[in-house]
Amino acid sequence: MTDFKKQAAELVAQMTIEEQALVLLGDGWWRTHGVERLGLAPINVSDGPHGLRKVESGYGDAVPATCFPTAPALAASWNTALVREVGAALGRECQAADVQVILGPGINIKRSPLGGRNFEYFSEDPLLTGRIAEAYIAGVQGEGVGTSLKHFAVNSQETRRMSTSSEIDARTLHEVYLPAFEMAVSRPGEEQPWSVMSSYNPVNGTHASEHHGLLTDILREQWGFEGFVVSDWGGTHERVAGVAAGNNLEMPGSGDYNRKKIIAAVEAGSLAREVLAQSATELVAVMLKAHAARKPGGFDAEAHHALARRAGAEGIVLLKNEGQVLPLKAGARIALVGAFAKVPRYQGAGSSQVNPIRVTNAADELAALLGAEHLLLAQGCDEEGETSDALLAEAAAQAAAAPVAVVFAGLPDSYESEGFDRASLALPPGHVRMIEAVAAAQPNTVVVLLNGSAVEMPWLDKVKGLVEAWLGGQAGGGAIADVLTGRANPSGKLAETFPVALEQTPPFPGFPSRNGLAFYGEGVFVGYRHYDKRGLAPLFPFGFGLSYTRFEYTGIRVASSFDADEAAAALAVEVSVKNVGAVEGQEIVQLYVHEREPAAPGPVNELRAFDKVRLAPGEQKTVRLTLTRRDFAHYDARAAAWVVKPGNFDLRVGGSSRELPLSAAVEVRTAPLVGPLTSASLVEDFRGQPAIYEELVRALGMGALLEPMPEGLTPEQESALRKTRMSTWVFVNEMPIDKIPAFSHGAFTEQRIDEILKAQKQ
Amino acid sequence: MTDFKKQAAELVAQMTIEEQALVLLGDGWWRTHGVERLGLAPINVSDGPHGLRKVESGYGDAVPATCFPTAPALAASWNTALVREVGAALGRECQAADVQVILGPGINIKRSPLGGRNFEYFSEDPLLTGRIAEAYIAGVQGEGVGTSLKHFAVNSQETRRMSTSSEIDARTLHEVYLPAFEMAVSRPGEEQPWSVMSSYNPVNGTHASEHHGLLTDILREQWGFEGFVVSDWGGTHERVAGVAAGNNLEMPGSGDYNRKKIIAAVEAGSLAREVLAQSATELVAVMLKAHAARKPGGFDAEAHHALARRAGAEGIVLLKNEGQVLPLKAGARIALVGAFAKVPRYQGAGSSQVNPIRVTNAADELAALLGAEHLLLAQGCDEEGETSDALLAEAAAQAAAAPVAVVFAGLPDSYESEGFDRASLALPPGHVRMIEAVAAAQPNTVVVLLNGSAVEMPWLDKVKGLVEAWLGGQAGGGAIADVLTGRANPSGKLAETFPVALEQTPPFPGFPSRNGLAFYGEGVFVGYRHYDKRGLAPLFPFGFGLSYTRFEYTGIRVASSFDADEAAAALAVEVSVKNVGAVEGQEIVQLYVHEREPAAPGPVNELRAFDKVRLAPGEQKTVRLTLTRRDFAHYDARAAAWVVKPGNFDLRVGGSSRELPLSAAVEVRTAPLVGPLTSASLVEDFRGQPAIYEELVRALGMGALLEPMPEGLTPEQESALRKTRMSTWVFVNEMPIDKIPAFSHGAFTEQRIDEILKAQKQ
Repeated sequence: MTDFKKQAAELVAQMTIEEQALVLLGDGWWRTHGVERLGLAPINVSDGPHGLRKVESGYGDAVPATCFPTAPALAASWNTALVREVGAALGRECQAADVQVILGPGINIKRSPLGGRNFEYFSEDPLLTGRIAEAYIAGVQGEGVGTSLKHFAVNSQETRRMSTSSEIDARTLHEVYLPAFEMAVSRPGEEQPWSVMSSYNPVNGTHASEHHGLLTDILREQWGFEGFVVSDWGGTHERVAGVAAGNNLEMPGSGDYNRKKIIAAVEAGSLAREVLAQSATELVAVMLKAHAARKPGGFDAEAHHALARRAGAEGIVLLKNEGQVLPLKAGARIALVGAFAKVPRYQGAGSSQVNPIRVTNAADELAALLGAEHLLLAQGCDEEGETSDALLAEAAAQAAAAPVAVVFAGLPDSYESEGFDRASLALPPGHVRMIEAVAAAQPNTVVVLLNGSAVEMPWLDKVKGLVEAWLGGQAGGGAIADVLTGRANPSGKLAETFPVALEQTPPFPGFPSRNGLAFYGEGVFVGYRHYDKRGLAPLFPFGFGLSYTRFEYTGIRVASSFDADEAAAALAVEVSVKNVGAVEGQEIVQLYVHEREPAAPGPVNELRAFDKVRLAPGEQKTVRLTLTRRDFAHYDARAAAWVVKPGNFDLRVGGSSRELPLSAAVEVRTAPLVGPLTSASLVEDFRGQPAIYEELVRALGMGALLEPMPEGLTPEQESALRKTRMSTWVFVNEMPIDKIPAFSHGAFTEQRIDEILKAQKQ
Repeated sequence: MTDFKKQAAELVAQMTIEEQALVLLGDGWWRTHGVERLGLAPINVSDGPHGLRKVESGYGDAVPATCFPTAPALAASWNTALVREVGAALGRECQAADVQVILGPGINIKRSPLGGRNFEYFSEDPLLTGRIAEAYIAGVQGEGVGTSLKHFAVNSQETRRMSTSSEIDARTLHEVYLPAFEMAVSRPGEEQPWSVMSSYNPVNGTHASEHHGLLTDILREQWGFEGFVVSDWGGTHERVAGVAAGNNLEMPGSGDYNRKKIIAAVEAGSLAREVLAQSATELVAVMLKAHAARKPGGFDAEAHHALARRAGAEGIVLLKNEGQVLPLKAGARIALVGAFAKVPRYQGAGSSQVNPIRVTNAADELAALLGAEHLLLAQGCDEEGETSDALLAEAAAQAAAAPVAVVFAGLPDSYESEGFDRASLALPPGHVRMIEAVAAAQPNTVVVLLNGSAVEMPWLDKVKGLVEAWLGGQAGGGAIADVLTGRANPSGKLAETFPVALEQTPPFPGFPSRNGLAFYGEGVFVGYRHYDKRGLAPLFPFGFGLSYTRFEYTGIRVASSFDADEAAAALAVEVSVKNVGAVEGQEIVQLYVHEREPAAPGPVNELRAFDKVRLAPGEQKTVRLTLTRRDFAHYDARAAAWVVKPGNFDLRVGGSSRELPLSAAVEVRTAPLVGPLTSASLVEDFRGQPAIYEELVRALGMGALLEPMPEGLTPEQESALRKTRMSTWVFVNEMPIDKIPAFSHGAFTEQRIDEILKAQKQ
């Protein structure tokens, strides 16, 4: 970056204020402004993230591009190498289309399964989200195309999305909603995303697009981000405040409207000239870098389709397989029911809607693999769930006429889309009727779901097989066929908890907020952290997924203690996993950390490492996972820092957040935090300093507490006095020291507080 | 009040600034300052609320007074007439002790059973809290003594209570945490409390003691409060800001410390002279009124003890009575186990700790009623749960030697007190061991609990009877004896839900907050509103309680519609209740309102009216309850008003929040709310005005959406276009109109927004 930064600074120095303001402004919807007289060309940006959505102007039709599996499917693969391949393919398609930055990945945390945009996001877990995002970014950017990490930050609901403030405490912000961004930006040895997109919503009352704390203090100063920030499209609020806060590019451009305001602010002195120049420099540096990385050319659409199919299959999660109803037996008849078998839903609506090169469906792909003559088709219902007694009777008849039935169901666009949140966890009633009609006619019924986030399944006990196929992209039909036939052994695991009912979900019933304030009151207890803490049994837990083979966890090796204060300290954890089934398969090995005595109530288990391993039948491998200091840390809001409490932790390893057969204890050693003491600290915070503590107690007029109990009391008197003393001690200990001057009528001074605080070693 | 106000204004006008500032300052801990040269005498204030705690100075020993049942017991009686009697007795004791204002009642809402001060508060429900508070206030003030309603507001945790900000949305504030205050202040035809006490905590970042929105905008302007506000003891933060916000009296006094600051602020012009004079006038008016109401004299301690016993018995809740193990049979032997049988815990620690005139215990009172020769006593364990194998063996032996055993268990002071929150819902382990040892030896085991808030009961299945006796005051032993023997038929019902486990409680695991911000993220779903909404089965639901007789609900009569806009509209609901058992008893008839289609997610049922009715065996009575507009309303944060959505409601009546056998539908008619429309309103908010709506859509550059679908598309093209259009419509509809000027490059102006808004009829 350094050369481009220097060159950018030189270019910007030659620009007039008007030109600098122009550079920070979109030229329409999808292009930046260049400055022709200085030889600076504009760059093109386009929507993503699971395929390129390049439109020539406004919000119109896009040029054809490969529609890869959507984010939930990529995340459910837990396969970072595979996601990197997908990213590289996207990068090639961007190069071919002369797009310099693709707007993605979307890495917001799934706070509720109702989130309308969940189908664009990876997971409820920050680590999994961050690891998948890193891989995506490395893939795209390896091709010389930039990514724009979105939506920064705390943007987990669609309802009134431009005006609902996410009200969140610092611990939850840093532990749940920021880590994936932090991981993607501060990857040692890896290139940062070229851009970060500020979100529509305010955070704690300040619009994200003009939030200095987020865009400058955290993003640039703490994490060292060197790219540019772009507003979400239409997400600019007060443009001048946005520039001052660290927001570089306004999209779509507002013509002269906000540019005039920027120029006026510089002239009036309310926006520093250097701030404007710095902002322009940050953006221009990326523009220069983008031009240097341009590689015009084409791409291999067939190879990308094949990759989309392979990625789709790895993201499919086998959730139920009673009596090994799957894989389908070759040569037998199979009833296929549901409109999605022929016309699948394979992506969501909104800014991510790709114009696919071609779309395959499961019926055709199964016909290709098994022979069309073995398939009995019935519509059952359409996408919206419209059906009739005749359609249901036909579906039941076809199902009964084969030894096995596969029902395709899921959510229509009208149920989930960018721009609104889902109203419930229900499938359309017609889909449910169809499933129940088929299951009543055929004991060997398998349901394949096409949907962007968790749904409820009151019919689950009635079917033997369940395949979560997500919105699988243009090759999703082939991916489903591969898994159903066993051509691909399913290896995906849930990246989000499936609840039994909406009532079980963490922010219920406060999600979505409709009153302008979204209180993130569940704190860090998002996703499985909620279900585990409340002791709830979800329908399917985070990290869960079946295979056509079985894996055994047979051993864990780790040091019994870990010195977290050593520079570059890392704790290696080795586990042995064996394929004890009959076919090759892949297992996702998950490592969760449990803190035995946390300083504040914390999650039961937190995912801290994972790996995906391929094993032949009978094969055993050692999987090595690594933990660092941060994996034992929590964010301390008062210290404004990541803090490790020395003590005992359990490392729990297995194939699902609720099935962790291996466990090892480790003692983590680190210097305990000495809290920052301020004038708002409580008397009890000074307990470790007896002379000062006594001074504070006496200044409050409570010196009598320091005397021994008087003698000669009756038992009743002694009991009453002990009770009074106890509550008086509590009163004293809970007192902020800045209240003592008033209590002492000024005898204990504010100057004395300053002296005491200055004397602290902190 | 009017005369006193006039007289106070005249007095204050004669005071110097220094004297006015002096009046607003406590003289020590329990007295105000008078102004001798003007003949203004000070008044005395003392802690309550379940008994007078008059101490001569500081935080020392109190003079003897009747210790009445604590707040949870009073609330569980649901008997407003009885609470009024208790209030009157308190008033007489205050008069006798020359106390002009008693600091109570405490009416904070129980957000979590862990709340350390729950034993001083009434309920999780605002209506029940408000009705009990009204009765208490009317009782005390009927004797010419003032009350100080506390703690205003949103003060539901003790942990870091002076520095933890309650972060709460406007709807939850108005619907859950303020209504009891509002009811007590604005009772038609009844005198207001003389004083309101501001709480220790900040609310949404501003200390309650200097919160102008709470102390002036809401309390005085909206509700019409005319008394004085006093800081909680040590709750002053910035004193000058407090005076400006409407806080009159600083307690305890800070000598010259803050008084000098007030005088300096007036001199510097940062505190208006009129504000100071107004503040002093409000306080002086109450002082004058208090002096006029003084009635020196004594009180009948025996009569007050008898009242305390009667009130205690009405507050006891019979939670389980399998095989009618209760009432105890006269003439049979009874084993009494547990230290609380002889030395009960009958009140909590902290500012409410009364020095009782005398204390009775259940063992002595049962001996008096049944004959000491029938009782077998065993200690089992002490208050803290300290026990031994020998003590447990003795308890089991005594239990086995009688046909029935009564075990006394509960919480020690070290588990619950003002100043800290409880660590768990558990009883001390020794209490549990004692209960289990007795239950193993004796099938007919009854547990009597002495505790200030809900506890978990993993042993519940092992015992036949369960009596919740709370902290019952000095006559609690007699109250327990009355209920156990059937001398009093239990008629209390829970004023708070008993959860199965802490994991089930509304703010778990975020309560208590330790990081300075307490997010009230569960919103209005506090108490039973939470359990009902999430579909959870608590251990015992709100409103539940058994009797030695049974009641049948046999009919409901109510008009089928209600015009809520009629002036003084009231909806009468009549239900018939019959005693179908063998003994006289009292039933608490509860009316809950269910809104079928609320504008925003709301509680399933909300308590809106109740009455307690006494019935002889076989007797049937008609209970008449009344609803008003407000009982169908919700607080709309955007409109900043109570709003009724016209539609269908169900009125559900019964003897517990979870047992409501009667139901009637009523259609509520009212003019629907329009707007308010502002520059932050969304495009969709203008849908009702087609011309403006179309103008906004076109200004956003999305006029193409208004055109019909093009013809001649393939089905795939049409499907893709419909999908694009849907998400584009969502984008347009969700756009705040103040963003349109930038989108239109300034063609749609800010002036045009002003014009549109001015043209609205609002």
